[in-house]
Amino acid sequence: MTSNLAKIRVRAFTGKKLAIPIYLWRTMIKREMQEIRLGIVGLGTVGQGVLELLERQGAFYASALGVRFRVVAASSRSESSLGRVAYKGCFKTTDPLAVAQHPDVDVFVELAGGEDAPKAWVEAALDSGKHVVTANKALLAKHGATLFPLAAKHGRALLFEAAVGGGIPIVRTLQESLIANDIGGLACIINGTCNYILTQMAVKKESFATALAEAQRLGYAEADPGFDIDGVDALHKVALLASIAHGRYVDYRLLSVEGIRNVSALDIRMAEELGYEVKLLGVVEQAASGKILAAVYPALLERSHQLASVQGVLNAVYLKTSAAGPLLLTGAGAGKLPTASSVLSDLVAVARHAADGAMPPPSMAYFSATNAADLTPIDDLETEFYLRLTTVDKPGVLSRVTGILGDEGISIRALSQKPEHDPENVPVIILTHAARNARVTAALKKIDALDVIREPTRVIRFYK
Amino acid sequence: MTSNLAKIRVRAFTGKKLAIPIYLWRTMIKREMQEIRLGIVGLGTVGQGVLELLERQGAFYASALGVRFRVVAASSRSESSLGRVAYKGCFKTTDPLAVAQHPDVDVFVELAGGEDAPKAWVEAALDSGKHVVTANKALLAKHGATLFPLAAKHGRALLFEAAVGGGIPIVRTLQESLIANDIGGLACIINGTCNYILTQMAVKKESFATALAEAQRLGYAEADPGFDIDGVDALHKVALLASIAHGRYVDYRLLSVEGIRNVSALDIRMAEELGYEVKLLGVVEQAASGKILAAVYPALLERSHQLASVQGVLNAVYLKTSAAGPLLLTGAGAGKLPTASSVLSDLVAVARHAADGAMPPPSMAYFSATNAADLTPIDDLETEFYLRLTTVDKPGVLSRVTGILGDEGISIRALSQKPEHDPENVPVIILTHAARNARVTAALKKIDALDVIREPTRVIRFYK
Repeated sequence: MTSNLAKIRVRAFTGKKLAIPIYLWRTMIKREMQEIRLGIVGLGTVGQGVLELLERQGAFYASALGVRFRVVAASSRSESSLGRVAYKGCFKTTDPLAVAQHPDVDVFVELAGGEDAPKAWVEAALDSGKHVVTANKALLAKHGATLFPLAAKHGRALLFEAAVGGGIPIVRTLQESLIANDIGGLACIINGTCNYILTQMAVKKESFATALAEAQRLGYAEADPGFDIDGVDALHKVALLASIAHGRYVDYRLLSVEGIRNVSALDIRMAEELGYEVKLLGVVEQAASGKILAAVYPALLERSHQLASVQGVLNAVYLKTSAAGPLLLTGAGAGKLPTASSVLSDLVAVARHAADGAMPPPSMAYFSATNAADLTPIDDLETEFYLRLTTVDKPGVLSRVTGILGDEGISIRALSQKPEHDPENVPVIILTHAARNARVTAALKKIDALDVIREPTRVIRFYK
Repeated sequence: MTSNLAKIRVRAFTGKKLAIPIYLWRTMIKREMQEIRLGIVGLGTVGQGVLELLERQGAFYASALGVRFRVVAASSRSESSLGRVAYKGCFKTTDPLAVAQHPDVDVFVELAGGEDAPKAWVEAALDSGKHVVTANKALLAKHGATLFPLAAKHGRALLFEAAVGGGIPIVRTLQESLIANDIGGLACIINGTCNYILTQMAVKKESFATALAEAQRLGYAEADPGFDIDGVDALHKVALLASIAHGRYVDYRLLSVEGIRNVSALDIRMAEELGYEVKLLGVVEQAASGKILAAVYPALLERSHQLASVQGVLNAVYLKTSAAGPLLLTGAGAGKLPTASSVLSDLVAVARHAADGAMPPPSMAYFSATNAADLTPIDDLETEFYLRLTTVDKPGVLSRVTGILGDEGISIRALSQKPEHDPENVPVIILTHAARNARVTAALKKIDALDVIREPTRVIRFYK
């Protein structure tokens, strides 16, 4: 048999050049139990989870993979967390850079969070020949376009399964399982805090403030909740998903984002009556031109949509693929062990390649600053809209409002005015047919300037 | 930096032994565009899909991966299908074995179906040093315990993402993404034909016969539908999933299987009234002892369960993992391009490793005949049951039935007798608390022997 797979060219002692299949070559070289030496930065919740799973799975990895992981360096701001690292001879420090540059470290594991400081550590680690595994979406959303090319230049892996969707294997699915597909679009519920709050508002008929307070009490929301509820965390992840799905850099700073602060209990009740659920969605759509629209906003989903039944802190990613059809992945989007599970899947990916004498290949879905996606602004989005106006109960109000919508070419699918006790604050719900986002924005500017409008009109887009 | 990753030991011309990191070594050897030569057996629907995707994705794979796939040998029973293979110089034959043994083939792609004949082809391919990619669940369910060890012995890949769940990346998810997890249990909707029929029965209130006829008209069911509706196809896949989830061989011939032939429109209506959906489930549970229970049967799922909303021909796999939490994957379980998409993900997995000079590592989740799982018989399953008795409307009937259940230690959660026009055929629905399957079987044997019972009692298990 001749095979062009996996040959290594060697010069024999006779001086003759030979191409030896690597499977033969491997029988010629000595193989031992591989030891993969880890340097971990950040021993918070996820870091502790990684240590726990490394211990739990250690015997299995040794017997099944011939691989032993050893933590040879660790850094944390907490002395007591460092004290709990049980690996003999482990170098312990409060300086992450010392771990990134430690000469014994094979794989640098960044679990500290932050954006600019971790960039310097990851650069140092890659520059000194280490592989990098990180759970840090903010880092990659902001600096991925610099870091991925650096990893490729050094022939090193930069893996990040834990950065998007916690325990859901969405990164590996996009980069490996769907390698025969174009991703026409995706929609995701990718922030558990927001989904928990919206679920509570829908199920328990709670106000936003009450649901937020409960989320904070349960540890699902931070004391300063803005990063989650204003959609910033979701935006980081969506930009990253868009980038790896399309192999081109999508800069989150150029995207439209809207959180859930302005979603009211009334909107959720109205949605329910109409047969819809309100979810904070990350949305990515690829036009036939190849241009990409990516954004985060609250959206109305028909109750029968697969994403509509994703409840509480669960996350989900819905993919429209060119060959595999629609695909939905649902699971734990955060948490100690789910996130650690994804970190370990990356560590094993490095180890399995290493055990076979090769580097993990840089993914074809990596992106660089010189390969930026051509973006469609949110103004060009065409979708149906839910509008909730707050008007006074006077003759002629509706004709003025519908006149403005008509002038902008927006046609109305349904309109309902609910009887209210207070004739000065009457909610009017308007559902539009598909319209360009810019037209709706323009119309609302005029509508909200009317003297009969009492509050800024609430807008929620539909997602199909 | 010292690194113990990926070193190759070489003897220098001076006679000194050196350990050279492979990333340096690789810069020393010449690299070219890799050509991966395929031998495809079976050019039916899936085979045509594979050819279509290879063509569609060819330029991308060349530029992004440095890999070119070329079909150098193909076999089909159909001359016209062979004629459509457009690769120059491709060896075309009606003899699959000639493809398996063709000296130019690097990867043998088995898409023909069957069980025993493909076993001989795959053995021949592995014996002659080829990697194997297959979509054939029946082959692997029956012969996997022989074929996986053979692949491992030869250091060759035997990949089968397309064999379970069509376009859903469940195999790679179990083998790679969840490598830090034990799988405590799984439940899957893994036969699209059955799920389509049950969905039609629920949504359109159709009888089983009508729904089956419609499925046949639409091409979702075969003219001879037994393989699907009696659960055999699902059983093959469940045995395979159980085997790879636990790394031990689960022989499908030892498992309990029940299809959907006996699910009546009445049962589905009753389930709906109770807030449940009827689905044909594949179920795998691992006890604390490590023993595995695997089976296929129709089950009642609470409407809020994530699997309950999986409609029509969609497939889904629900995993209970030890670290990542509950995980659900939903997608197209069959079809030309979804299945081909999974075949290509395997081809690329082989190619990516080959391009890096290494074999794809044999999965730690492979199983062998000498590593059989310790199985729990279905008799030991503890669950709640739905029983539909058909009785005559006579005093004392219910006390006799409930007496028998009580004697077997089965306690009743709910009982309802529906008023019927025909006093000779009165349906009585009994829901039990959790009970051992063997006890229920024993009780029903006695109940069905009563003179007041008109038809064999229908039993549907609950799944939580």
